Amino acid sequence: MLDSFFKPSSVAVIGASREPGKVGYEILKNILSSGYKGKVYPINPNATEIQGVKCYPSILDVPEPIDLGVVTLPPTLVTRIANEAATKGLKGLVIISAGFKEAGSEGAKLEQEIADICHRAGIRLLGPNCLGIIDTFTPLNASFSPDTPKLGSIAFVSQSGALGTAVLDWAVAERMGFSKFVSLGNKADLNECDILDALADEEETKVILLYLESVTDGERFLKSATTVTQKKPVIVLKSGVSAAGARAASSHTGAMAGSDLVFNVAFAQTGVVRVSTTAELFDLAIAFSTQPIPAGGNVAIVTNAGGPGVLATDACERYNLKVAPVRPETVEKLRSKLPPASGFFNPIDILGDAPASRYRFALETMMDNPDVDSLLVILTPQAMTEPEDTAKAVIEVSARFRNKPMTASFIGGGAVQKAITLLEEAQIPCYQFPESAIEAIAELTKYGERVKTTRIDTFPTIIVNRQKAAEILKSVRGGDRLTLFASEASQLASAYGIPTPLIELATTADEAALAAARLGYPVVLKIESPQILHKSDIGGVKLNVTSEQEVRDSFYELIGRARIFYPSATVIGVNVQKMVPQGREMIVGMTRDLTFGPMVMFGLGGIYVNFLKDVAFRLAPLSQEAALEMIQVTKAYTLLRGIRGEAASDIDSVVDVLLKVSKLVTDFPEINELDINPLLVYDKGKGSLALDFKVVITH
Amino acid sequence: MLDSFFKPSSVAVIGASREPGKVGYEILKNILSSGYKGKVYPINPNATEIQGVKCYPSILDVPEPIDLGVVTLPPTLVTRIANEAATKGLKGLVIISAGFKEAGSEGAKLEQEIADICHRAGIRLLGPNCLGIIDTFTPLNASFSPDTPKLGSIAFVSQSGALGTAVLDWAVAERMGFSKFVSLGNKADLNECDILDALADEEETKVILLYLESVTDGERFLKSATTVTQKKPVIVLKSGVSAAGARAASSHTGAMAGSDLVFNVAFAQTGVVRVSTTAELFDLAIAFSTQPIPAGGNVAIVTNAGGPGVLATDACERYNLKVAPVRPETVEKLRSKLPPASGFFNPIDILGDAPASRYRFALETMMDNPDVDSLLVILTPQAMTEPEDTAKAVIEVSARFRNKPMTASFIGGGAVQKAITLLEEAQIPCYQFPESAIEAIAELTKYGERVKTTRIDTFPTIIVNRQKAAEILKSVRGGDRLTLFASEASQLASAYGIPTPLIELATTADEAALAAARLGYPVVLKIESPQILHKSDIGGVKLNVTSEQEVRDSFYELIGRARIFYPSATVIGVNVQKMVPQGREMIVGMTRDLTFGPMVMFGLGGIYVNFLKDVAFRLAPLSQEAALEMIQVTKAYTLLRGIRGEAASDIDSVVDVLLKVSKLVTDFPEINELDINPLLVYDKGKGSLALDFKVVITH
Repeated sequence: MLDSFFKPSSVAVIGASREPGKVGYEILKNILSSGYKGKVYPINPNATEIQGVKCYPSILDVPEPIDLGVVTLPPTLVTRIANEAATKGLKGLVIISAGFKEAGSEGAKLEQEIADICHRAGIRLLGPNCLGIIDTFTPLNASFSPDTPKLGSIAFVSQSGALGTAVLDWAVAERMGFSKFVSLGNKADLNECDILDALADEEETKVILLYLESVTDGERFLKSATTVTQKKPVIVLKSGVSAAGARAASSHTGAMAGSDLVFNVAFAQTGVVRVSTTAELFDLAIAFSTQPIPAGGNVAIVTNAGGPGVLATDACERYNLKVAPVRPETVEKLRSKLPPASGFFNPIDILGDAPASRYRFALETMMDNPDVDSLLVILTPQAMTEPEDTAKAVIEVSARFRNKPMTASFIGGGAVQKAITLLEEAQIPCYQFPESAIEAIAELTKYGERVKTTRIDTFPTIIVNRQKAAEILKSVRGGDRLTLFASEASQLASAYGIPTPLIELATTADEAALAAARLGYPVVLKIESPQILHKSDIGGVKLNVTSEQEVRDSFYELIGRARIFYPSATVIGVNVQKMVPQGREMIVGMTRDLTFGPMVMFGLGGIYVNFLKDVAFRLAPLSQEAALEMIQVTKAYTLLRGIRGEAASDIDSVVDVLLKVSKLVTDFPEINELDINPLLVYDKGKGSLALDFKVVITH
Repeated sequence: MLDSFFKPSSVAVIGASREPGKVGYEILKNILSSGYKGKVYPINPNATEIQGVKCYPSILDVPEPIDLGVVTLPPTLVTRIANEAATKGLKGLVIISAGFKEAGSEGAKLEQEIADICHRAGIRLLGPNCLGIIDTFTPLNASFSPDTPKLGSIAFVSQSGALGTAVLDWAVAERMGFSKFVSLGNKADLNECDILDALADEEETKVILLYLESVTDGERFLKSATTVTQKKPVIVLKSGVSAAGARAASSHTGAMAGSDLVFNVAFAQTGVVRVSTTAELFDLAIAFSTQPIPAGGNVAIVTNAGGPGVLATDACERYNLKVAPVRPETVEKLRSKLPPASGFFNPIDILGDAPASRYRFALETMMDNPDVDSLLVILTPQAMTEPEDTAKAVIEVSARFRNKPMTASFIGGGAVQKAITLLEEAQIPCYQFPESAIEAIAELTKYGERVKTTRIDTFPTIIVNRQKAAEILKSVRGGDRLTLFASEASQLASAYGIPTPLIELATTADEAALAAARLGYPVVLKIESPQILHKSDIGGVKLNVTSEQEVRDSFYELIGRARIFYPSATVIGVNVQKMVPQGREMIVGMTRDLTFGPMVMFGLGGIYVNFLKDVAFRLAPLSQEAALEMIQVTKAYTLLRGIRGEAASDIDSVVDVLLKVSKLVTDFPEINELDINPLLVYDKGKGSLALDFKVVITH
């Protein structure tokens, strides 16, 4: 896929320039100097030849077909170019030029026009406002970055062009190898999903790095990322975290959610590895691109110094890895050739005077050990240390055990520089300090576990009365409020089989008394007013009302309280509801994200919800397994299973509620927020009950 | 202090060797080549001259006085050397030689002997098994590290010699400046506290780095570190985290505590900055050693690329810094000279084509701004970028605003290498990626806040019946159990003014009935047995017992239950206690750490304690302010203040309990564990009550 970008048979530089320093000059120069073997056509009406290559006034004047056009002309000229590209039958356009959507509404209009032309003509478009594309295998450097990086298996896709080229410059100095570099720019057509899809089945790329500031199509991203991460690791650095605060928080759930949280949820559930710094992005990239995925989490550490060995051990604990146990027979083997003062129990401390041969023996013995899944070799320069010969030993041993990751940390400056270069050239990741090496091994391991344990998600059929739900929502949408009355919400819940207590709205004391008689005593009375959100704060809830007289008295008291505390509130009436037994208080909620759609929440409820924040999130639709997992990852799960002599709760019924909520919010995009607080969960076999079911819609 | 080590007037190398590669040769060479200006005396009975310096058979043969001796001889010879040093009147000895405590019991004995000799003679001893000492100001390199680092203001103290010299090698390549390097070795005499104390008032050192695997004297460390961190920052990399699991966890508190946690608590309360990786240690060291402490947390970011600016902004949020707001007048000023498409609202995005002059203007404007406390300048190499001239502009602007930290992140490789070197030479910390720069600014800011808000701790007088408490503990210590009976614990609490319900131990149903009558109904009955720790698990607690008959029935039921569930348990009897009103359940506890002594815990109690782990720790003795702070940092504080219409709790009474517990466990080192679970906290003004007070002692 996207071969017209990565492996075009011919490229036109539309806006090629004779002036060094100009974009149209530099890009042409980079294409030519990158060793590109296809045809190159500089396009410039005022030149006959640029950098030794025949120039054409327009792409329409080129006699042969053109695969890819790279455009560096000012925005106002690009519409014409797009039309010419359509006529000429180009397959792809890279628009380097800036001055489009990022520059204001004029530019946005122009960008849309061009995208439309390309779309109609079947031309895929990268950019505008991007720094181009590199494929080291083709090879083709159709980018603004003067250095083509070394051949490698890292694909780097960046939404920030400047960050992309700065990082490439750094990576070239670090001898890091890349398969592709793609600068996304404004994403008028091609976005991160197109690139992910294209790289998924492509053999040159072993790991995909994404620098993202936004995701264009959340739903598609969830699908693409889930598929691609099963085939190769995707590591993302997503910025714009601090924009999270921008979103107004209107309900409990909303207050805890936030756009950055949604990204975390989306990345976690699709298996994308999220890092928080640029340094981590490349620390992991090097490991993923050069090392195999380990079979398990047992790490061997071989070192010539105690301190760094301990630091590495600590890091293992921090990243949930295990320092591999060493069996007696292995200890015996190690003892046979290592000095008696060595550490034999991992970290294998081969002492400060270890020459390369001692390293080789320890490395071979540990790599050959079935209890070891990956290895970190640490070297500090001491009197007898042979850094370069040790590097060679590491390289040779690693080559013999291709199924186990080998990482190194040769700590030092001048004394180890040559050795580090040897390791890097041989594709052994070498980290300045041991902690980063362990972090990299941990991510390799986690990825391995994820790929190994592919879960088959089941989506049980849920029988619902969709017609009825639609009617309720339609009737509310007709009015001028956004929040459903409790009685409406209760009917909506019932339509989707979510258990709620029956609620009747009473507008007079007589009606309340009748409702109570119908429902059966004891009952609960609650004030109903769109403006009064936290009813108990004003004493707007009466529990355990046991007689008709009490119902009447309570009715007037609630109306009175509402009038006193919220004089301007519209009081709709009083809800009458049958008193229900106590249960474990949980919370289930949903907020709708602009990018990713409905996100379902589960957590501990009651007065604890706001300050404990013991919650799990997942983007809908939920599978049965996902719903159960949401419950299991919270601390509330411990409570639900029954702690310290208490009975276990009906967890199955919570799964059921989650699935039904997921279906409800997926079926009706007009439901903007949903909040069950509390969901009362009863003992195993006795179900659960959505005691307070709140729904907010959009018009 | 310790001038005989850092600035000796003469040094003897005891065990100087003529053979290159030998420790005795290399150390002498390093001393001579480091530019040391004092007298140097090689000591070797078989040579008359080494490396051009006159050699003596023994230090006793040296005609002039000797300040410092550096010993490289085998362990068995060192006792004699120590005796000679005592005779000769040396002030300090650095024992490089290994083969002491780290090699087994023989070595440990030898080490103790030597330490004793030195102690009696008033000789301070560094090591043994260390790599020596460097002072770049003297200058003196009496270490095994061949490269003397650049002059600077970082002191690096390492318990691992190999890590120390490896890091020095790396730091030399990075052009990092040091004031001192100390390899602690086995710490037979001088330990981290001696070095901290010595560096506290010394002008050459601005920041102290510690790599520690253990703390020798916890109580002294708490005092030294508290004092030193008020004068200069101390950054510690403490390893051995994963050894935490080794400690058996025998009570709730113990299960949550662990030796690494104690270190966290000790570092936090003394103001020591703890880092978790070697990379962080030096990232922070560079900033602390070169930059001023900012007045506040407002950061300005100047960048020529959007992406890295957003990453830096994200990092600000992560590290609790504020991206400085930009006032309208500043925006106007920026607008006057920056291109209209620039970002004026911080990050100040001066666009991809920014030359050095534009950087200079933006930097000056922002540094001159009273709303800005620190600045990060980001550069990515683009077409018009002038990395070196920009570096010069950064250096000049930084020099004009000496009271505000300036940090840089010039992202790239070859294109920015020269510029980075310029910045480094001018002492502007330059980080590979912007996130590390922000982390460094955050730590500078945190340190500034801590130093600024020096709290005067008050220790109110607590009137206790120490005599009575001592008697209770003494009577238990006489027996063969470690856990106090509930009735004893309740008396102990009372002696220290900790409110507990009265408890009477009944061994017969008659006694129980009499006790209930004395205490007044309703009462609570609880089984008392040293083996039955979680009484409610076996139904060993009877609440709300209201009549004599019920007391008698319950007595037999409890004894029966204990027999059934724990047939081999020793049942002491049944505790009778007056039923007390419900309150908010908190937990207070204490575990005694081998290094740091009693650590007090406070947190949310009840069934939540084990899985929420909402707890705060602090090493005793507690001040009133520290006790209040412990409460305030937990989420339980939200509950105690009263949420959602509930009354506020009596927080003062919790402070009081914490202070009394602190005093009790400080007064009696034989109290090994203490656990109040729950501490019932009542409404404001109504106090709190230690409902279950458990005390475990050591014999």
